[in-house]
Amino acid sequence: MLHPDRLLPADPATRDIARSLFSSVQNLPIISPHGHTDPAWFADNKPFGNPTELLITPDHYVFRMLYSQGISLEQLGISPLDKNSVGSADPKDVWKIFASNYHLFRGTPSRLWLDHVFADVFKISKLLTTDTADEYYDTIDSLLQTQPFLPRGLFERFNIEVLATTESPLDDLNHHEVILNSDWQGRVITTFRPDPVLDPEFEGFQENLSILGELTGKDTRSYSQYLAALRDRRAFFSAHGATATDHGHPTARTANLSPSESEALFNKVSKGNFSSDEAELFRAQMLTEMAAMSLDDGLVMQIHPGSHRNHNAYLFDRFGRDMGADIPMQTEYVDALKPLLDRFGTEPGLSVILFTLDETTYSRELAPLAGHYPCLKLGPAWWFYDSPEGMRRIREQTIETAGFYNTVGFNDDTRAFLSIPARHDMSRRIDCGFLAKLVVEHRMMEQEALEVAELLAYSLAKQAYKL
Amino acid sequence: MLHPDRLLPADPATRDIARSLFSSVQNLPIISPHGHTDPAWFADNKPFGNPTELLITPDHYVFRMLYSQGISLEQLGISPLDKNSVGSADPKDVWKIFASNYHLFRGTPSRLWLDHVFADVFKISKLLTTDTADEYYDTIDSLLQTQPFLPRGLFERFNIEVLATTESPLDDLNHHEVILNSDWQGRVITTFRPDPVLDPEFEGFQENLSILGELTGKDTRSYSQYLAALRDRRAFFSAHGATATDHGHPTARTANLSPSESEALFNKVSKGNFSSDEAELFRAQMLTEMAAMSLDDGLVMQIHPGSHRNHNAYLFDRFGRDMGADIPMQTEYVDALKPLLDRFGTEPGLSVILFTLDETTYSRELAPLAGHYPCLKLGPAWWFYDSPEGMRRIREQTIETAGFYNTVGFNDDTRAFLSIPARHDMSRRIDCGFLAKLVVEHRMMEQEALEVAELLAYSLAKQAYKL
Amino acid sequence: MLHPDRLLPADPATRDIARSLFSSVQNLPIISPHGHTDPAWFADNKPFGNPTELLITPDHYVFRMLYSQGISLEQLGISPLDKNSVGSADPKDVWKIFASNYHLFRGTPSRLWLDHVFADVFKISKLLTTDTADEYYDTIDSLLQTQPFLPRGLFERFNIEVLATTESPLDDLNHHEVILNSDWQGRVITTFRPDPVLDPEFEGFQENLSILGELTGKDTRSYSQYLAALRDRRAFFSAHGATATDHGHPTARTANLSPSESEALFNKVSKGNFSSDEAELFRAQMLTEMAAMSLDDGLVMQIHPGSHRNHNAYLFDRFGRDMGADIPMQTEYVDALKPLLDRFGTEPGLSVILFTLDETTYSRELAPLAGHYPCLKLGPAWWFYDSPEGMRRIREQTIETAGFYNTVGFNDDTRAFLSIPARHDMSRRIDCGFLAKLVVEHRMMEQEALEVAELLAYSLAKQAYKL
Repeated sequence: MLHPDRLLPADPATRDIARSLFSSVQNLPIISPHGHTDPAWFADNKPFGNPTELLITPDHYVFRMLYSQGISLEQLGISPLDKNSVGSADPKDVWKIFASNYHLFRGTPSRLWLDHVFADVFKISKLLTTDTADEYYDTIDSLLQTQPFLPRGLFERFNIEVLATTESPLDDLNHHEVILNSDWQGRVITTFRPDPVLDPEFEGFQENLSILGELTGKDTRSYSQYLAALRDRRAFFSAHGATATDHGHPTARTANLSPSESEALFNKVSKGNFSSDEAELFRAQMLTEMAAMSLDDGLVMQIHPGSHRNHNAYLFDRFGRDMGADIPMQTEYVDALKPLLDRFGTEPGLSVILFTLDETTYSRELAPLAGHYPCLKLGPAWWFYDSPEGMRRIREQTIETAGFYNTVGFNDDTRAFLSIPARHDMSRRIDCGFLAKLVVEHRMMEQEALEVAELLAYSLAKQAYKL
Repeated sequence: MLHPDRLLPADPATRDIARSLFSSVQNLPIISPHGHTDPAWFADNKPFGNPTELLITPDHYVFRMLYSQGISLEQLGISPLDKNSVGSADPKDVWKIFASNYHLFRGTPSRLWLDHVFADVFKISKLLTTDTADEYYDTIDSLLQTQPFLPRGLFERFNIEVLATTESPLDDLNHHEVILNSDWQGRVITTFRPDPVLDPEFEGFQENLSILGELTGKDTRSYSQYLAALRDRRAFFSAHGATATDHGHPTARTANLSPSESEALFNKVSKGNFSSDEAELFRAQMLTEMAAMSLDDGLVMQIHPGSHRNHNAYLFDRFGRDMGADIPMQTEYVDALKPLLDRFGTEPGLSVILFTLDETTYSRELAPLAGHYPCLKLGPAWWFYDSPEGMRRIREQTIETAGFYNTVGFNDDTRAFLSIPARHDMSRRIDCGFLAKLVVEHRMMEQEALEVAELLAYSLAKQAYKL
Repeated sequence: MLHPDRLLPADPATRDIARSLFSSVQNLPIISPHGHTDPAWFADNKPFGNPTELLITPDHYVFRMLYSQGISLEQLGISPLDKNSVGSADPKDVWKIFASNYHLFRGTPSRLWLDHVFADVFKISKLLTTDTADEYYDTIDSLLQTQPFLPRGLFERFNIEVLATTESPLDDLNHHEVILNSDWQGRVITTFRPDPVLDPEFEGFQENLSILGELTGKDTRSYSQYLAALRDRRAFFSAHGATATDHGHPTARTANLSPSESEALFNKVSKGNFSSDEAELFRAQMLTEMAAMSLDDGLVMQIHPGSHRNHNAYLFDRFGRDMGADIPMQTEYVDALKPLLDRFGTEPGLSVILFTLDETTYSRELAPLAGHYPCLKLGPAWWFYDSPEGMRRIREQTIETAGFYNTVGFNDDTRAFLSIPARHDMSRRIDCGFLAKLVVEHRMMEQEALEVAELLAYSLAKQAYKL
C-alpha cells in the first residue's frame, strides 16, 4: 500500500537525489515540539478505545469533509451539548459511514495519513471501502487492546524523542506530573497556551480569571497581580517541561502601551466591561507582555493567528467549539508585530515563531521579517497547508528570502496521535524533494542538501524549541 | 497543428499516465452549465457572419490584448455609442490587423483556443500570420455559409449535451421558447441573472424595476410585490429550462436583515434615493433573499464577485459596458458570506457555487468554506484563470482542503461559441495532468484517478447544476 | 563551480529545449535600465576597495541575512550614525564572519550570485568556507587593483550596452557629466528619482525644497514654480541621458485633483503643516503630475510601491536608512491608479512600468491592468522576487493574461555591480526554462520561443526604456 517513492518528485534524476536524501533522514527520531495529543494517554497507558473513537471522532479534518457532503455530526457519533439529545451512534456504524465515503478524501492529506496509519501501524494491506469496513474495524479494534498498541508502546515504536502537548494555564498538569514521576523514559512535555486568560472574548474568560487567582493565590483583578499570576503559571509549566508558549489570537496584532494604559485597559477587561476593539487591544498588549516574560524565563513564543473560529453558528450552538468550522482569514504581520518588535525586536534572548493561515504573507511579510529580525523564526506550513502542495509552496515562497536557518523544521500540530509518523514522513519526503530540485538544478550541492535535510527533519526543531 | 500531447506534463512517466486518463474522458459529451452564448443562434440556426464578427469583435480577451498594444477599438470595427461616429472598418481589414498581431497572444490561453478552433473546426493547417491572413479569412468565411457550420450543426458536432446561456430577468426568453418548441433535440437552457433588478447601481435600475413590474403585473415599488415579481420570473426561467441563477455583484457580501429593515432599505433604493453603502447592503440582502427563493424553487446559486467593471472611463463613455476593461479586485468571503450562512448554511436544499477573481482566496477562504459547509461548492478557475497555469493553481491550492467532491467540474463561461470544445479540451487535459502527478507521486491510485477524471470532465457539473 | 545547466528545468526534454534557447541569448549584451550602482565608479575608474567594502557592506541582501542570525551590523563594519561610536571592524575579520556563515545563504539567490561572481569574475574554483576565507580575500583583494578589474574594464567585460543609475533630483550629475565628456564609450545614464522632493514625509523634505529652489532659481514655495522647478530638473536629467523616472512611494495611490486643490495642498505641505493623509494625497497627486510631465518630455515612469521602509526602529535610529529592514506590505493598484488612468490612461505618449512587492497582485491586478491599458507595462520580479522561484512565479501568474509584449524584460535593480552579469544570467536561464516548458507542453512553437527569449533578454527592455 505504501510505495517507497511516494511523495517524491516524478522526474527520475530528481527522484534519485530525493531518495538518497530521504534515506538519510527517514529514520531520525521524531521531534514533535507542538501538538495537541492528550497527555492522559501516556500517563495512564490504557488501551485506546475503538477505531471510531480513535480515528474519526476527534479528527476535525475527517469529520469536516464528511459534514461538507451532508453527513451530520450526529450520524458520526458526536454528541450535542444538550445532553438530552445525545445520539447513540454505534461506533461500528460510524466507521461504515466513514468507509463508504472514503473516496471523499482523494487528493487530501488526510487520505495519505490514514493510509499510512492503516498500512504502517495496523499492517492492513487492503484499501478501505464499504466492503472492507468490517474487517478494518475488527482488526484495528482488537489490535488496540494489545500491549504494543498501548500509548507508550506506540510512542516508542514511533521513535518519538520528545512530544509537546498544549495545555490551558488553568490545567493542573497532573498527567505530565504522572509521566515525570513514572519510570517510563518517554519525554512528554507541556506548552503554555494562555488564550483562556489573555483573550477577553474567550468563553468563560471572567471565570478563568477567578480560577487563575485561586490557583496562584493572587488577586487577578489587580493588573500587577494578574501579571504575577501569569508568571507563576509559566514557571509551573516550565517545571513540567514546557519550553514554549503558544498564542492563538484572531490577529497577529501587538501593542506597546505604557504600564498605566495597560492597567487601565485591564481594569475594563477584568470587569467584563469592554468593546471588541478593547478586547483586541488587550490581546495585542498581552502578546507584548508575554514577550517580556519570555525574556525572563526563556520560553519560546509561538503565534498562530488568523483563524475565524467556530464560523458555523448552528454547529457552535449545538456542539460547541472545534467542530471543523474554523476558517482562515486575511492576516497582516508587518504593522501588527511592529509594537512588539519596537520594544523587544533586538533582544538576543527572545525567540518568536510565526505561523500563518494566509499564504499570501509567506513571501510578502513572513520571509522578509524572519530574514531580518534575529528574534523571529518562521514556522512550518500550518493546518490546511500541512500537505504536500502546501509544504512545497511554503518552501518555494520563503526559503529564497528567509533561508533555511530562520525556519524551525517541522511540527505536526496534531491531536491524531497515530498520524504523527505519517506526518513527519510526509514532511521529510516533501523537503527532500524540494532539496533534490535545488540539487538537480545546480542551485545547491548534494552534500549541502544532506546537511539541510537533517536540519529540517530534526535539528532545527530541536534548536528552535530548546529541546 | 494540434499536438496530441499538448498541455500534458513533460515528464515521460507522468505524461503516459495523463495520456491514458485523457483518452478515457476526451470524448465525453460536453456539459456547459454556465456561459454567455447567444440563444438566437440556436433558435434561428442562421449562418454566422464573417470571421471577424464571429471570432474577434465579441471576444473581449482578444480585443483587450490588441487594445493594450495601442490598437484602437475603432480600428477593430467596434462601434462607439455615438452613432454619428460609427466606424466602418472592413471586417477583412480588422482580420488583417488581428493576424499581423497574432504574436501578441503567445503564451495566452486565447492563442491555444484560437489555434484549436482554426485547426479543429476549420481544418486549417498553417499558422495565422500576416501572410496567411487572407487565406484564413476566405476559408472561414466560406465554410460559415455551409450546413455543417450552422449553429445547430456545430452544437451537435461539438457533442454538447447541454448548454446554458445567461439572461436578464427582463428577457422574454423568446429564443429559448423557439428552441423548446422546435423539433431540434439540442438542449439549450437559460440561467437567471438578476443583477439588473437587484443592483441599485446597475445602469437603468429604476427603469428595470418598472419593466419588471410590467412583465409580472406587480407593483415593483412595493417590497413584497417586488419579491413576488422576482419569484415569478424565476418560475418563468425554470419553465424555460433554467436550473441555476447567477450573481455578479462587486463583492460577495451578504446580509441578514429583518423583513422590516429590508423593506425600509428597498423603499430608499426603489426611489433612487440611496448611498453607495446602502446599495451594497441591498445587494447583500438580496443575495440572501435569492438563497431563500432557491430553497423553494431549487435553483442553484452561482456567485461571481470581485470585478471592477468598466475600469477604463474613456472606453466606458465612448463604447459602453464590457469593453475588456473589467479588472479583478481583492475579494473577501469569510465574513461576507456569514450572514447568508448563518441563516441558510445548514439547509440541505441549498446549493451555492462560489467563483473568484482573487486567487488568494483559493486556499485561505474558498477551499476551507467549501470543505465544510454542505451548501457551498467551489466553481472552476474563472476568466483570466481559465488557462493552463490558472487551472493548475486552483487544483493545487484547493483540492487538498476541499477534496474533489466539493467542486463542480468545468464550465467554459464563454460567449465565444466556437471555443467551447477547445476550452473543455484544455480543462480535461490539465485535470488529467494534475491527476497524473498525483498518481506518479503515489498520492492516488490510477483506478481512482480514472474515476475522478470522469467526474471532473462530466459528472460533477451535471450533478452540481442538476442537469 | 558553475554548472552549464544551472537553473534549467530538470526534465531532460525540457532541459534540452531550454539549453538551446539559452545558448541563443546567453551572449546578448546586457541592458540594465534600472539600478543603483554608483556613477562615480565609472567617472573616476579607480580600483574598488577591498572585498568586504565591495561585496558585503553595501549589499543589504547579504547583511540582513547575517543580522537575522544575531550578527550585529557593527561586527560587519557598518558605522553607526553617531560617529563617536564608529566601529573599526577589520575588513578581513568581516570577511571571515561572512565566510563562516556562508551556509546561511543556501537556497537564496544571493548565494547563486555570489558563487557566480567568485567563479566567473574572480575565477576562484573552491567553495567559500571558513578555511578558504583568507585565500578568497587575498585573491579578490589583489585582483581588484589590476587594470581588468577597474570599473570600466568590468563594465566592458560584462558586455553592458547601457547601465542606468538612479539619482535624486538634487544631484548635480557631475559623475555622469564626467562620463559623457570622457573618451570612454561606456553608456552610463541616470534616472530621475524625485521622492526626496515629492514625498512630504521624506527625511529633509523642507530642506530639499529649498535646495531645489536654489538649483533652479525658482521659488519652490510657490506651486507653479515648484512644478516648473521639477520640469527643469527633468530636462537636466534628460540632458544627462535619463530616459526614465522612478517613484518609490509607500503605495501606488494616484489622485486627480483640480489645479486649485493641488495648489492648496501644496501650500500646506510646503509649510510642513500637514497630516499623514495629506502627505499621502500629495504624493498621489504628484504621481499624476509626473505623468503629465512625462507626456511632455517622454520620460518613462517607473512605480515601485509597497515597501515599509526602515521597519526596525532600533537600526534606523542607530544606523539610518537602508539597513536591510524594508519589509513589503499589501499593495493595491486597481483603485489606486484609476485617477491617473482616468486622466492620462489613453494618451499614446505615456508609458508607466509597474512593479510590486505584493505577489498577490500579479494575476489579480497587474496582469489584467497591463493587458488592457496601452500606457501600462509590467516590470520584472522585484527585490526579494529577483530569484529563481520568484521569476518563475511572475511568469506563470502574469503571461497568460498580459502576454509577453506588455512586459519590459529584465532589470537587475542592484547596487552590487559585480552581480549584474550573474543576475542577467539567472533571468535568462529562468526565462528560457519557462519558455521551454511552453514548448514541451506544445503551448508554443520552438521558433516562437526563440523570438520571445531574445525579447525577454534584450529587446523588450531596450524598447520599453527607449534606449
